[in-house]
Amino acid sequence: MRNIELADLEDIALGAAVLGAGGGGDPYVGKLMAQAALRAGGPVALIGADEVGDEDLVVPVAMMGAPTVMVEKLPSGFEVMQAFGALQAYLGRSVRAVMSMEIGGLNSTIPIAVAAHEGLPLVDADGMGRAFPELQMVTPTLHGVKATPMAICDEKGNAALLETIDNHWTERLARSMTVDMGGAAMIALYPMLGKQLRPSVVRGSISLAQQVGRAIRSARVERRDPVAGLLGACPGALLFEGKIQDVSRQTDGAFVRGRVRLEGIHASRGRDFQIEFQNENLVALCGGEPVACVPDLISTLDLETAEPITTERLRYGLRVAVVGLPADPQWTSPAGLELVGPERFGYRFPYRPVRELLPASGRA
Amino acid sequence: MRNIELADLEDIALGAAVLGAGGGGDPYVGKLMAQAALRAGGPVALIGADEVGDEDLVVPVAMMGAPTVMVEKLPSGFEVMQAFGALQAYLGRSVRAVMSMEIGGLNSTIPIAVAAHEGLPLVDADGMGRAFPELQMVTPTLHGVKATPMAICDEKGNAALLETIDNHWTERLARSMTVDMGGAAMIALYPMLGKQLRPSVVRGSISLAQQVGRAIRSARVERRDPVAGLLGACPGALLFEGKIQDVSRQTDGAFVRGRVRLEGIHASRGRDFQIEFQNENLVALCGGEPVACVPDLISTLDLETAEPITTERLRYGLRVAVVGLPADPQWTSPAGLELVGPERFGYRFPYRPVRELLPASGRA
Repeated sequence: MRNIELADLEDIALGAAVLGAGGGGDPYVGKLMAQAALRAGGPVALIGADEVGDEDLVVPVAMMGAPTVMVEKLPSGFEVMQAFGALQAYLGRSVRAVMSMEIGGLNSTIPIAVAAHEGLPLVDADGMGRAFPELQMVTPTLHGVKATPMAICDEKGNAALLETIDNHWTERLARSMTVDMGGAAMIALYPMLGKQLRPSVVRGSISLAQQVGRAIRSARVERRDPVAGLLGACPGALLFEGKIQDVSRQTDGAFVRGRVRLEGIHASRGRDFQIEFQNENLVALCGGEPVACVPDLISTLDLETAEPITTERLRYGLRVAVVGLPADPQWTSPAGLELVGPERFGYRFPYRPVRELLPASGRA
Repeated sequence: MRNIELADLEDIALGAAVLGAGGGGDPYVGKLMAQAALRAGGPVALIGADEVGDEDLVVPVAMMGAPTVMVEKLPSGFEVMQAFGALQAYLGRSVRAVMSMEIGGLNSTIPIAVAAHEGLPLVDADGMGRAFPELQMVTPTLHGVKATPMAICDEKGNAALLETIDNHWTERLARSMTVDMGGAAMIALYPMLGKQLRPSVVRGSISLAQQVGRAIRSARVERRDPVAGLLGACPGALLFEGKIQDVSRQTDGAFVRGRVRLEGIHASRGRDFQIEFQNENLVALCGGEPVACVPDLISTLDLETAEPITTERLRYGLRVAVVGLPADPQWTSPAGLELVGPERFGYRFPYRPVRELLPASGRA
């Protein structure tokens, strides 16, 4: 166990946005929210999954919605406490720790804010090891953990509790409510006991996010290449360096879908590159051929600063580095690929691990 | 207080379908459901609104959805008990009586089934004195009664509890869930104490439905005109007699909307007539001029038998009588007309009471 202090938030939000694979919310907004909560509630204890008792109840919290909306419709900070409180009251027992369900600039810091507000520890884990667009797309689904009972709240004061027959139904009903609620809502879901949590989550995500953020920040301070700094802190491959030529993006209230086209620069000169996304980056194509795809992480970073560029911030003219990072091994199992592999998102090609592109030293 | 016995169901379902103004569900399905419940649970006590104690909790139940779907997707009879039970558990106190929120072939009999199953009395009242397409369109809304907490369940086992800031938000969120659930869902809502219920509901609706049904049935047995029999049992005017020439109807999952065109026969010969509906009949036009409109009741009956024809059963060639019945006086107040008057449904003409068309003897 260690504490998350105010000084840690910068690195956590930055690293989480890299690991959010284009989604998971804006790191600047996420940092501000957690800063306010830590100032009011003091530091948050970060505990390992092994420190959670078998019968201890853990409740993950998150923001749900299209990132384009989440940037415009900032959370008040209150409604997520309301969602947490409603679920705790419905369960009729005390929650012992808070958790993140996805890694991302906002969805890694919102749970810190709730933990600070409630005076509870945060589990150093999450349910994806990245961000995904739909709420059934978490490793606990692979282990039979139910998303419900789930609470969902908006900033106006509307709230609902859901009990569904499976996690796809939770996604379906909660997605409609999120659209009705204006495109973004706060949720508390996947209540888990320690014994359910331990085998099913992705461990160490908050620490990994902080490590990634720290590596980028140190490289910036020491005037080294921050993208190289990032790739020194976790296994990953530089897929492309380029300038954004074109972004097409549609938000239908539920999701933002689109693609970005890049023209190569530096070592990538003369090649064209495209990334397709649904909230998060799904596939990267070079010369029309897939070079990386879900469940592996595809992250777009500012070429000079390695600042992660979430899908709603992509715009013409930005010079970016695209990196590929291997997914948690739970995702590359047959069941994992069935839930979040390329075919699940409508692509006709099979998963090809980005791990194969890594330099030998970086392969696990 | 008196009992509702098996033998009463035929008249209640028939009369309720007349008062359902084209909606409120199919009387045949409604009768079967209540019959099964009365056989299993025995007769149901019917109590007046004045017999409910000030602090007694009453919970109305209903089916929500487009009638076209409700006819195809029959309730199992179980999910409405689940909705009732979920709301009772959430409220954390015993419910003392069940109630209907709208009068209709199904929505007047579902509460009888729940009352029989739970061994509770049924209040002789409802929240509309007819059927309306949206759930905030009830007289308790005029008195500040909240629709939530509300439970909603489908036949698959999905369920939700809603808490909203106003009854329009309840409609919006519950409508989306109903669409997701396949176009029809079972709901328990508007939990009320006796002291809230008494000033805000439409009293005597179940008895009135039974009286209307009995009048039609007696006329049939005695070979008198059943439409005249109906108009002898409650104030109302014969608006038109005609043959259906054309029905246009669209179901978008949430509502069925459309219009029916009639060609006059008998005394109506030479005139044309049109009814527009959203689940329920909204306006009746003769020669393009409105002759009856919401909140007054417009009901289409088989010309020979006075069997009510709900909007999903309208079809080419049927010979029908169209009757207009005055709405409960709560609906013709300025606040009532604002909630359910013709302008609320997008019409540009003001409410004109069908009461003005009644023979002098029938005017209140």
